[in-house]
Amino acid sequence: MPYVNIKITREGATVAQKAELIAGVTRLLQEVLGKNPATTVVVIDEVEMDNWGIGGEQVTLRRQRGQ
Amino acid sequence: MPYVNIKITREGATVAQKAELIAGVTRLLQEVLGKNPATTVVVIDEVEMDNWGIGGEQVTLRRQRGQ
Amino acid sequence: MPYVNIKITREGATVAQKAELIAGVTRLLQEVLGKNPATTVVVIDEVEMDNWGIGGEQVTLRRQRGQ
Amino acid sequence: MPYVNIKITREGATVAQKAELIAGVTRLLQEVLGKNPATTVVVIDEVEMDNWGIGGEQVTLRRQRGQ
Amino acid sequence: MPYVNIKITREGATVAQKAELIAGVTRLLQEVLGKNPATTVVVIDEVEMDNWGIGGEQVTLRRQRGQ
Amino acid sequence: MPYVNIKITREGATVAQKAELIAGVTRLLQEVLGKNPATTVVVIDEVEMDNWGIGGEQVTLRRQRGQ
Repeated sequence: MPYVNIKITREGATVAQKAELIAGVTRLLQEVLGKNPATTVVVIDEVEMDNWGIGGEQVTLRRQRGQ
Repeated sequence: MPYVNIKITREGATVAQKAELIAGVTRLLQEVLGKNPATTVVVIDEVEMDNWGIGGEQVTLRRQRGQ
Repeated sequence: MPYVNIKITREGATVAQKAELIAGVTRLLQEVLGKNPATTVVVIDEVEMDNWGIGGEQVTLRRQRGQ
Repeated sequence: MPYVNIKITREGATVAQKAELIAGVTRLLQEVLGKNPATTVVVIDEVEMDNWGIGGEQVTLRRQRGQ
Repeated sequence: MPYVNIKITREGATVAQKAELIAGVTRLLQEVLGKNPATTVVVIDEVEMDNWGIGGEQVTLRRQRGQ
Repeated sequence: MPYVNIKITREGATVAQKAELIAGVTRLLQEVLGKNPATTVVVIDEVEMDNWGIGGEQVTLRRQRGQ
């Protein structure tokens, strides 16, 4: 019954990579806490780099500097 | 003053259906808890089916199987 | 498969009232969008009044003024 | 280490305005609570006006009435 | 830089189990998407069973029936 | 109409500090985007240090090392 929300910057994650995240988190919750995979919900949000800040600045600027 | 966030898969909910959800949830909070509709906020997120997992897999796959 | 998060101030909502919210939102999503109740998840967060702001001030202050 | 999520309606916030929000919130958390800006994360969600409700109706309708 | 929020019912997850969830999700994001573990944030919310609904009813009721 | 959620570790933020956060964020949204303070909602979540991970480990461990 767990609900997991994963937020990442939108930088080209593929359908297959998102499938891996969903499968991996669901398995982790089963292994660690015995949670039923059938009712585990995972939602991935891909956020524009201009809308994500860390260290007080947009990720866009960090990427331009190669970080 | 309540805040409600509704997450659904993006599968063609119409403007009118979203209006019904907003009106319905706002009314429910007024009826059950006496909350003031004027300051009840409802935010609907429509999530791509590749970004929504249940049972360890993407909704896209379930829909392809007719689920 | 919808996921709904309801945030309210912690002011004595009873177990029965929370059950009504859960049942009501689940029914609304079935009626409006045909969503399967079996996989609809509702999470209620009750937030301390000192931790909820509206109009730039804590709800605690508004309640003291009888609002 | 704080995490801040700002949700606004999608009505043309510019890249520069979003940069100001990110810088401003990060500075506020440093000034008020001494939080390290380097690990403060800010995520801005811009929500379609049809998906945002207040007072039981969509923001779209309020904007049409000039509110 | 990812942000992950895990919501589970409050049913006695131990400090060690929560540490495993945090380590496991952080590792998954590094393996699948190459995300830097140093800035990956994981927040676990433990929700009272009366405040969690699935299938239109509180988890408390399901647990009483042995589900 | 904005909605802001601030998540911090539970480490003794006072009522006055939380009031400052609420007032500061509300003012920032007014100054940068012209948002109406009357309908700006701010919710602060204080999260146990065992439930907050960064760098793959709990904040509790970092604090024990003086970080």
